[in-house]
Amino acid sequence: MFDPSGPVVGIDPGVSRCGYGAVRSRAAGAFEAVACGVIRTPTTDPLPIRLATLERELAGLVEELRPSAMAVERVLFQANVRTAMSVGQASGLALAVAARADIPVTDYSPNEVKLAVVGYGGAAKEQVQVMVARVLGLDAPPRPPDAADALALAVCHAWGGGLRSAVTAAMSRDGAR
Amino acid sequence: MFDPSGPVVGIDPGVSRCGYGAVRSRAAGAFEAVACGVIRTPTTDPLPIRLATLERELAGLVEELRPSAMAVERVLFQANVRTAMSVGQASGLALAVAARADIPVTDYSPNEVKLAVVGYGGAAKEQVQVMVARVLGLDAPPRPPDAADALALAVCHAWGGGLRSAVTAAMSRDGAR
Repeated sequence: MFDPSGPVVGIDPGVSRCGYGAVRSRAAGAFEAVACGVIRTPTTDPLPIRLATLERELAGLVEELRPSAMAVERVLFQANVRTAMSVGQASGLALAVAARADIPVTDYSPNEVKLAVVGYGGAAKEQVQVMVARVLGLDAPPRPPDAADALALAVCHAWGGGLRSAVTAAMSRDGAR
Repeated sequence: MFDPSGPVVGIDPGVSRCGYGAVRSRAAGAFEAVACGVIRTPTTDPLPIRLATLERELAGLVEELRPSAMAVERVLFQANVRTAMSVGQASGLALAVAARADIPVTDYSPNEVKLAVVGYGGAAKEQVQVMVARVLGLDAPPRPPDAADALALAVCHAWGGGLRSAVTAAMSRDGAR
């Protein structure tokens, strides 16, 4: 299922609301949003059913978008253990879905995303959203916030990936001299 | 796939070591261990691959044991956020696998397991293991500890389930008078 020409998809994991956003490179440093949204699971369903629903939706998303890479938010320094556990459950499913579909997947901390998108790891959430809108050529920050966060993850990975490729290319040119 | 006559399987979730243990009722209050062990994922594999492996192994276990119920350890009050996140990832997969197979699944805190098995929520881990061995008619606590913990979860659920059935039966007898 892996398609190297596919978009980069970002996942902001959560059981109640799981944001997703896919971006594709348009020109140097500019991207377009291919898709974005939020997967919600009914709060009236028991947790195991909600997790199975989330996994099925994520697998469907990967099937539909055929991404070349996935970027998932990592939450390690969050104070609340209950939240970490819940985010862990959602992120575990996202990572397993990516691995099953042979999609390279990377996790990023919120600070890494801020650093990559705004250039400052301590940036406010709003600054990230404004910058994501600018990079994607949108008039306003994407809505809802979970979808915007997922697009930021995708942009962070696409930029970092581009940088890494450039560095690798430069290093191999140097090596060839 | 759901088989109401199947054993109760306990899962002590973890990415590096995921304990499992299945018990079946033998007589009033006594059980036999049908299976127990530990699913390990190679530390040399990237996390997404390890999670996909764990999910596949758990699905295989459910396919093989055809449990009537699953009990999964819930870790909410653990101090370490990194551990909670990792346990969350493994438990999310276990819960989703159970839901996909239509197996009723319940989560229990370590204190609930201790209370059910030893009669005291503050019991030491060793006391739980000795009691599990006794209930299962084993000469020594099952090994390794992750498998023993999983068997304790299964016993906790099987006992609680038995109690709940007895209460329900008694209440319906009372209602029929």
